[in-house]
Amino acid sequence: VQVAILLFDGLTALDAVGPYEVLWRMQDAEIAFVAAEPGPKWTDNRALALVAERSLSDVQQPDILVVPGGFGTRALLADEALLDWIRRVHATSVWTTSVCTGSLLLGAAGVLQGLDATTHWLSLDRLAEFGARPVQERVVRQGKVITAAGVSAGIDMALTLAALAAGDDVARAIQLNIEYDPHPPFDTGSPRRAPPEVIERARAGSRAAQAR
Amino acid sequence: VQVAILLFDGLTALDAVGPYEVLWRMQDAEIAFVAAEPGPKWTDNRALALVAERSLSDVQQPDILVVPGGFGTRALLADEALLDWIRRVHATSVWTTSVCTGSLLLGAAGVLQGLDATTHWLSLDRLAEFGARPVQERVVRQGKVITAAGVSAGIDMALTLAALAAGDDVARAIQLNIEYDPHPPFDTGSPRRAPPEVIERARAGSRAAQAR
Repeated sequence: VQVAILLFDGLTALDAVGPYEVLWRMQDAEIAFVAAEPGPKWTDNRALALVAERSLSDVQQPDILVVPGGFGTRALLADEALLDWIRRVHATSVWTTSVCTGSLLLGAAGVLQGLDATTHWLSLDRLAEFGARPVQERVVRQGKVITAAGVSAGIDMALTLAALAAGDDVARAIQLNIEYDPHPPFDTGSPRRAPPEVIERARAGSRAAQAR
Repeated sequence: VQVAILLFDGLTALDAVGPYEVLWRMQDAEIAFVAAEPGPKWTDNRALALVAERSLSDVQQPDILVVPGGFGTRALLADEALLDWIRRVHATSVWTTSVCTGSLLLGAAGVLQGLDATTHWLSLDRLAEFGARPVQERVVRQGKVITAAGVSAGIDMALTLAALAAGDDVARAIQLNIEYDPHPPFDTGSPRRAPPEVIERARAGSRAAQAR
């Protein structure tokens, strides 16, 4: 099972690393970190680089595609070479997936037309621009297309995907291997339950991070 | 607030990236990925490299130290130059933390002597070798030393730490920014609740991963 995880400058590291940490544990998984130009790809805050070893042309028919998000997606929404690659990969993929604003790239490639889909709560409205129906759920599956909510939701998405691709027993054991027994210290992880002042602070934090 | 995150070959990527994704969102956080030799550091399965930009000698007095785990920790348990660095950093740090088997490195440096501490459930027994009292909790705080359980527990640890270092309001907003509203598909993330066959499969998975 070949898993292609797209990297680009301005990505959110956890969007890519959460699914990676789950999916490589599937037996016979082969993980390929791909980018338009191989090499180090810097995160949204430029504090960390993840290395892409493969180019898009190296990886043409992965079984699973994972598209992470991050501020860097904006510059790619009109990148026809990348969108073409996503379309071609999606034509033969078994699963096409995204985390956070990675779904905007799937949308721009036309993959989400007529489908329910999700993304980071701050960008949810934008999905309609691509003919998708925005849904505020953590993991949204429509046939072979699976979109996840913001950042940390990629872990839940990947465990769901591992269950679909390799069976529940495999996914259950992977969940134990990564000791995914979450105990968040607060109940503010969803805008549906966070109080208004937390939502306002999170919006301001996101704006400040973009400005940097 | 300077945050030093240690990288080394054979690390588990999510151990480092989970805390990173939380802690950089603290206002005025400066994240430094450090390694004995700067450059790309390969994960346990050699599918991904994270780039360390700074050397140990570059970063002498960070406010926060994060030590991730992974199979690569074994080769470092007798690395006196690294253990010395950990000891010196710990002498002036505000918070000294670990994720997964990163706590074995803290232990080898003498930091956990006489303290409650945790680590990945598969390595819990090893903590006693370093004079620590093994505790099967997700996040264990003893004064300024915070250890987290396996892999994904670093996210919970870092949110706890962000609350301690920057206040609950900051941590609540960060939790919303990373949309950390976990919905694991199974209830097998802890060995305390996973059924025996899942535990056996997870052990076998870990052995197979080490053998690769």
